[in-house]
Formats: sequence, structure tokens, C-alpha cells
Amino acid sequence: MKRIAESTVRRLSLYLRFLEEFEARGQVTVSSEELAQQGGTTSAQVRKDLSFFGSFGKRGLGYSVPELASQLREILGLGRKWRVVVVGAGKIGAALVQYRGFRQRGFDVVAVYDNDPRVIGHKWNGLVVRDVRGFGTDEVQRPDIAVVAVPAEQAQAVADLVVRHGVKAILNFASAPLTVPDDVAVKTVNMAMELETLSYSLVNRDVESDDD
Amino acid sequence: MKRIAESTVRRLSLYLRFLEEFEARGQVTVSSEELAQQGGTTSAQVRKDLSFFGSFGKRGLGYSVPELASQLREILGLGRKWRVVVVGAGKIGAALVQYRGFRQRGFDVVAVYDNDPRVIGHKWNGLVVRDVRGFGTDEVQRPDIAVVAVPAEQAQAVADLVVRHGVKAILNFASAPLTVPDDVAVKTVNMAMELETLSYSLVNRDVESDDD
Repeated sequence: MKRIAESTVRRLSLYLRFLEEFEARGQVTVSSEELAQQGGTTSAQVRKDLSFFGSFGKRGLGYSVPELASQLREILGLGRKWRVVVVGAGKIGAALVQYRGFRQRGFDVVAVYDNDPRVIGHKWNGLVVRDVRGFGTDEVQRPDIAVVAVPAEQAQAVADLVVRHGVKAILNFASAPLTVPDDVAVKTVNMAMELETLSYSLVNRDVESDDD
Repeated sequence: MKRIAESTVRRLSLYLRFLEEFEARGQVTVSSEELAQQGGTTSAQVRKDLSFFGSFGKRGLGYSVPELASQLREILGLGRKWRVVVVGAGKIGAALVQYRGFRQRGFDVVAVYDNDPRVIGHKWNGLVVRDVRGFGTDEVQRPDIAVVAVPAEQAQAVADLVVRHGVKAILNFASAPLTVPDDVAVKTVNMAMELETLSYSLVNRDVESDDD
């Protein structure tokens, strides 16, 4: 399989969302034009995105909604449960844990960790906060994904810890880039930086979007 | 000025973060190599990114940390206060409002709106929740940025409302793309989609990152 750009993967996520809406409304087939219109892209782009993963749909008949949805779920790794742990029992972590969309997509938050003795052992969104120093040696089964929601200056140490214990994917909310081995995927979400792209666009009305 | 890619703007945000750390430690000059190392990029990329905005630094002497930081703040539109409103008094909105980093960067959350009579009029993170139907006609001064943190099916209506009242930048947390006029900047953050790029990379170990 060819290497796929992250922007393609994001569009596949978006197509899946539309397909699920179509499914809920009982629509049986969909054209690349409809998907393109919903996703703010072109039908050529839709066909190109899907072609990376084989041949879907029939010329003139469009795509079968349930079939394409199910194939996209498989491509995106959504056909199974993913074990997620949150490191950092703060506001960001709380918003994530309480976010319905995660569980619906198969992302189960199975544990939360912190290093603050004032919160360790306490209930937090239905979970008991664990001591981060026990990560990897306590009875929690190895997670697939770790959410790093700690202050920037602690983020690399947390990344090192979870990587040492075999975690291969990190969702990083700390405003610090993480250095990890090549076989570990990191996705950084920085809220202040998202707002800064907006303030930039307000003072410089010439920004060109290249990632959505 | 040339059109600048959003990925460049994001790197400028990142450079600014490092410069502020250097400032805090009293470091006076910095080389493009140091900035590149911190940002996980190359010194050529750093020089190219900064060259869009004029000439900084002196050959062989590097950049003045306070000078470059101050210039980047200006480029990013951080030299002033931005009035931010949150539409949707839920968990995501709460995490944002309580996020220290925003205020430090000049993003002031001045009002919160909802359409639920059970929360309108109640205190929420130090603000009183306003009725969204009053948006633009109440005594709240026009915001610069609106954060859309409502369910997907309500997001477009909220976007239409704030755009009609002159808002030119939207941070969108709804899992729906928004259609807005060309002069309005939209930045969409979708938590489930961030996780999906990770689950994709766990099942397909060949994803190529193209946006960070």
C-alpha cells in the first residue's frame, strides 16, 4: 500500500461521518459528488482518496452507503475497541473522558493517571486516579493509546514512560513537541495554537489553509 | 506579502513558544539551528519561515531572542486583546474557558451563550450563560472570535448567526464542516478525528504526517 498523507486520512474520517448520517436517514447509495459537496472538496478528490484503498462503487451507480461506511471503518481501525489511558487528571482530560463521541467510535478510556498525591486515589469521572509512577507495572492492561494532558515541562517524561511500556500512539495536548521513536505515532493538539492561526488570519487576511 | 501556508503559521507559533522559554531563562540570542532542533525541523526551514516576514537576525550572530519574540507576537496578532465568545456551555467550552494559556495569549472569553433554558441565566465558569437568540443584539460588544461548541446539527445555524453579526473568525469544535463566506476564517478541531488518525496509524503503519 502507498504511504497515505494525513490530510487524506482526515478526509476519510469526514466521509465516514457523512455516510453515517446518510445511513441514519436510510439513504442506500451516494455519489462522489454528494460526498464531495458535504466535505467541501471535489468529486475527483473523493475518488482519488478512496482509490488508495482499492476500488469502491460502480460507475454510474455511486457507492453503497453501508458498504463504503463499513470499509472506511475498517481502514480507519474502527472495527475494534482501543484501550485509551489519560495521563493528567485535569480539565482537558475531563472533557475527553466525558466526550460521548470517543466511546461511540470504540475508544474506551480504561484508566487515568496523575502525579499529584492530592488527586491520586480519588474518583474522577467514574475512574480512580492512579499514581503515574505505577504506569506499566500496575494491573492495567497495556493501552493502545495514551492521552498526554500534563503541563508542557512534564510531557516528554510522560511520553518516554508510556513508550518504554509499549504504547505506540500518543494524543498530545501539551504545548511541547514530543520526541518519540519512529514506530510511535504522535498527534499534537494545541488549543492556543489553533486560536493563533485565527488571530493571524484576522491581522493578515491572506492565510491559505492547507490542512482542512 | 505572499500567501502563507497554515503550516508555516503553526511553526511560527511553535518558534514563539521556544523563544519565550529562552527569554524566561535569560538567553539573549538564538541560532536558527537551535530553533530548528527545538521545533523538530531544519535550520533552512526556520530561515525560510522567517524570511516571509522580512529579514531577522544577523549572519553569524543569530537572532535576538526578545526582538524575534516580539516580532513573532506581532505577526501572529498577539500584540492585542481578542474578544472571544463561546457558544455552547458544555464540557469543551468549560475546558477552554478555564484554560490559562488563552488569557495569557490575549484571548479573553467575554461571554458564553447557550439555547437551553435550563442553563440560560445560570453562572458558568465566572460568566452568566446568555440566550443565544440575543447574540448580536444584547449589550455584549461584537466579538473577534466565536468558539462553536454545540452539537454538529446546530453548528451551521450558529455559524450563520455569528457571521451575520460580523464575526470574522470561528474555532469550530463541532464534528461538521462549516460553510462561511470567504472573508471568515474557520479552524475546526475534532477530537474524535484526531484519535482516528492515531487508530489509522496503528492499523496501517505507513501514515505520513503532513501537518505537524
